[in-house]
Amino acid sequence: MGIGFEQMWAELQPLGRSATSGGYFRQPFDAAERECHAWFVEQAQLRGLEVGHDGNGNSVAWWRAAEHAGRPAVLTGSHLDSVLDGGAFDGPLGVVSAFGAVDLLRERGFVPSRPIAVAVFAEEEGSRFGLACLGSRLLTGQTTPDQARALRDRDGGFLLDAMSAAGLEPELGRSDLFGEVAAFVELHVEQGRDLVDRDAPVGVASAIWPHGRYRLDFTGEANHAGTTRMADRQDPMLTYAMTALAANKQARLADARATFGRVEVAPNGINAVPSRVTGWLDARAARTETLDAMVDAIGRQADDRAGRDGTRVVLTVESQSPAVDFDPVLAWRIADRLGGVPMIATGAGHDAGVLSASGVPTAMLFVRNPTGVSHSPAEHAELADCLAGVDALAATLADLAG
Amino acid sequence: MGIGFEQMWAELQPLGRSATSGGYFRQPFDAAERECHAWFVEQAQLRGLEVGHDGNGNSVAWWRAAEHAGRPAVLTGSHLDSVLDGGAFDGPLGVVSAFGAVDLLRERGFVPSRPIAVAVFAEEEGSRFGLACLGSRLLTGQTTPDQARALRDRDGGFLLDAMSAAGLEPELGRSDLFGEVAAFVELHVEQGRDLVDRDAPVGVASAIWPHGRYRLDFTGEANHAGTTRMADRQDPMLTYAMTALAANKQARLADARATFGRVEVAPNGINAVPSRVTGWLDARAARTETLDAMVDAIGRQADDRAGRDGTRVVLTVESQSPAVDFDPVLAWRIADRLGGVPMIATGAGHDAGVLSASGVPTAMLFVRNPTGVSHSPAEHAELADCLAGVDALAATLADLAG
Repeated sequence: MGIGFEQMWAELQPLGRSATSGGYFRQPFDAAERECHAWFVEQAQLRGLEVGHDGNGNSVAWWRAAEHAGRPAVLTGSHLDSVLDGGAFDGPLGVVSAFGAVDLLRERGFVPSRPIAVAVFAEEEGSRFGLACLGSRLLTGQTTPDQARALRDRDGGFLLDAMSAAGLEPELGRSDLFGEVAAFVELHVEQGRDLVDRDAPVGVASAIWPHGRYRLDFTGEANHAGTTRMADRQDPMLTYAMTALAANKQARLADARATFGRVEVAPNGINAVPSRVTGWLDARAARTETLDAMVDAIGRQADDRAGRDGTRVVLTVESQSPAVDFDPVLAWRIADRLGGVPMIATGAGHDAGVLSASGVPTAMLFVRNPTGVSHSPAEHAELADCLAGVDALAATLADLAG
Repeated sequence: MGIGFEQMWAELQPLGRSATSGGYFRQPFDAAERECHAWFVEQAQLRGLEVGHDGNGNSVAWWRAAEHAGRPAVLTGSHLDSVLDGGAFDGPLGVVSAFGAVDLLRERGFVPSRPIAVAVFAEEEGSRFGLACLGSRLLTGQTTPDQARALRDRDGGFLLDAMSAAGLEPELGRSDLFGEVAAFVELHVEQGRDLVDRDAPVGVASAIWPHGRYRLDFTGEANHAGTTRMADRQDPMLTYAMTALAANKQARLADARATFGRVEVAPNGINAVPSRVTGWLDARAARTETLDAMVDAIGRQADDRAGRDGTRVVLTVESQSPAVDFDPVLAWRIADRLGGVPMIATGAGHDAGVLSASGVPTAMLFVRNPTGVSHSPAEHAELADCLAGVDALAATLADLAG
């Protein structure tokens, strides 16, 4: 099995990889992501798994027998797309490990009592059309076809055109790709360092933190950078800068996360005091009350500083995602089955969260990430930990489909 | 004369004005700036002034008689282009006032003993091709034709193509448009509030402050905004934010100017801790030693914070303009002739600074700006102060060309 895993990994390794950064550019429906998808179909066919697709760009590989007809499936898998300049593991590890687990179960002569399916979800990262988990949201009806049709990529292109250009025949909306699902288990590289601290190669997800995205528009007065005395300025850059530092401090105090990763400045001229700075705040916390209190505190500090700078700040909620509590019975059963591995919450969204919100009993397995770095070329997992993950996934599938 | 000034102002007022912001978009060689230029030619012809052009986009209107042949000219004027969304006064006030001063001198029966010329310089703001005072720099040889040919606007277009598209026949380089110049006097709206504080409608420039532009590249580690603990981050946004606040503080302490008006972030994703933030520092001070000490202090504080954030910062000098000390004899003569108006230094660059650097005896008159706001739709000067400016310019020209 180990050789199979390493071979699969080696085949995926060059696809969409930047020669300069070593990071991955696998945007939905572009050439690199399509190559990954062709690899998925090939792997399924090598194993005699029947491949299916829906009109949203999602795919599945079935391990099922005639006697499974009508029985709800046990679903695993993940996604193959990446963020821009992302890592090798976020997504693909869950797909490679799913095939690895099927191989392992077959080697051991395991006979499933219900179908086992390996899923690949489209545009999990939202790196092209801006909406994360687009494939699973469409499949479960959490995003409507009309909403998806309106999405555009950075070049202004529409989703349907991108899908058609990739040779797909899009038919957006709820789909019956998986039939009835008894449980979904997504394996994923950890994107933090909880498992490093707990000295465990594998863990089980307890929850996904609630998450909000907020736009903060700081406005002041455009002015000449050379002639305007510091005391006469209404410079929104200062208000923004203090708010970015305040967000960091509040997140540290609350043991939460707050990030200003995107900024736009107008007129963005070197010799002009800006008239406007817009910063986007990504905020997450273990509990909704903590999240709300942190964002309130950041907003208050921004207001206070705006008062001193002679500027104004308006905070707009762009999106709020409630907490996802994974099926606790399923999570405890898996953790127990695996010999008491740690249960950890995550700040990242996943297709597992979308399926959980749609009522599917859902669980996640995490594989240790020695640096905790993710969404970066430096993302990593050791081979031994990856193999431990395959082992854990196989044990979980055996338990659920035994 | 007052009516002539107001009529000229009313004719220019709608050209290139945004209906939404009320600000001006008069980029070199675009339609609005060309309309301003046609207005200049028309005004010259109305007054019987002979119009001349050079191949750099600069123009002149001559008041001269046969007996002036071979005598060095007294030059006045300014520019007609604006920054993006700029004010009405920066540039045009100097051109309108020049015509107003010519009118006033003629009404009074003044007979000049040497030519008086009204100049319009091209691309003073650098708002299209990025290099301020492009027209006067080319004319005086401070920018070479090769340097200018390499410049591109935001759409990637070259200077020569933009000039040709506007119907000009470009021939870049040193030009003899003005012949020998005895003195250049540029009238300009003040871009700060020194004259407000001194309760004076008009002042004389003593100097242009030394000025530097610096690029600060803050680099850290791209990471997931949801899962990366605050303590595990190397977030260059924090280092940038603290540096922007430090620059403001250092400028206040040194009675200087420091501005971060332009910022670029990579990958600039809402859910990504940035890998890189680039900020441009515009810094100016009354003395070179003050400027250098301030930039050193900002750089040190950036380094210190980078050490705490686990990031790196590299400071690159993009341009440094030395101080311009206007001809002190000329400045005192003008201030004295005007009854002891204030002498003030400015943080802004001007074509007058370029001509001064090329060895022309040069002076500037400033007209009071009640808010000090410039490079903004809110830029303003009261009519009475503008007329006082025309009066002062007429008196100065009479003195220099009498």
